[in-house]
Amino acid sequence: MRSPQALRNGENPSPSAQHRLPTPRFHSTVAEQKLRRFNSLILVFRLTSFSFSLAAFVFMLTNTHGSDSPHWADYDTFRFVLAANAIVMIYSLFEMGASVWEISRGATLLPEFLQVWFDFGHDQVFAYLLLSASSAGTSLARTLKESDTCTDSNAFCVQSDISIALGYAAFLFLGLTSLLSGFRVGCFIINGSRFHL
Amino acid sequence: MRSPQALRNGENPSPSAQHRLPTPRFHSTVAEQKLRRFNSLILVFRLTSFSFSLAAFVFMLTNTHGSDSPHWADYDTFRFVLAANAIVMIYSLFEMGASVWEISRGATLLPEFLQVWFDFGHDQVFAYLLLSASSAGTSLARTLKESDTCTDSNAFCVQSDISIALGYAAFLFLGLTSLLSGFRVGCFIINGSRFHL
Repeated sequence: MRSPQALRNGENPSPSAQHRLPTPRFHSTVAEQKLRRFNSLILVFRLTSFSFSLAAFVFMLTNTHGSDSPHWADYDTFRFVLAANAIVMIYSLFEMGASVWEISRGATLLPEFLQVWFDFGHDQVFAYLLLSASSAGTSLARTLKESDTCTDSNAFCVQSDISIALGYAAFLFLGLTSLLSGFRVGCFIINGSRFHL
Repeated sequence: MRSPQALRNGENPSPSAQHRLPTPRFHSTVAEQKLRRFNSLILVFRLTSFSFSLAAFVFMLTNTHGSDSPHWADYDTFRFVLAANAIVMIYSLFEMGASVWEISRGATLLPEFLQVWFDFGHDQVFAYLLLSASSAGTSLARTLKESDTCTDSNAFCVQSDISIALGYAAFLFLGLTSLLSGFRVGCFIINGSRFHL
């Protein structure tokens, strides 16, 4: 079992890490186990977020019901919903890979400093992006319901609603992930390491 | 000058705080100064957020131009924009009071544990709320521009746009505040105190 120091990717160990060198083997095992559990939780959230955004993307993309029905690409807002879900889907896939790498090898894919800030920054921005797209989509869907579009082509409106709802679910799990990756950034700033023990 | 321990509101000082008791006076002064600067930054962000949300609220509330012009209350989404800005405005006002209290007295208004979690939780939720309202408002404003509403009453649409834009500005500063209050929560979890030194 390696000590937490062996797992860190920083070239220059911080004073607090140097200070921690003579800690007993038991401590590092606990730290490593806790970090592994923490990373597994992040992985589960990312998988859920990926699944929901994939479903939202597919539902919006296939939202065409014959030539007399409206098309999602006719509406700027629905194009925004599709793009936001696509971005979150691709990002979640990449981050799942990085997470699996970290859990299996015990080291981050990018240098530790870059990895914790990359994760947190993108989690925050993409969570806001997805919420923004979903809210805009909801507003458009409500407006369409008051017009003739939904009486003429009910299937189009129902499928848009489902896609938007799935987008909200993806946002929820991405938001939870951003809390956890934010905590890792906090640990990194305070302790000079993503370990919180 | 009081030591950081005197400023903490927790009844049971954590082991790390007890460990820090024999540190010299110099260290505690630096910690206190850094915390004061940090809190001042939060106060400035809160003031900016309050100003923008107040302006957005007033712009939306006064968005009536005669009896033949549409009224903001006719649209669910604009009511949502008004409500979200009102909530953020009142919350920012309360938090500014709490911030001034903390800077002047050196202790949090609520017990420290409650205060850090209260601040962070509400910052996050209200930032999401305000972004959601602004995005929905943007979507409705775009839809209105394509309809006859804006040709008939251009002033109504312009004033709505301004209100929504001010809402985005308020969100930006609330989002920045949530990062800072999130860091305080991180400090509290890791060190058992909102001090990060």
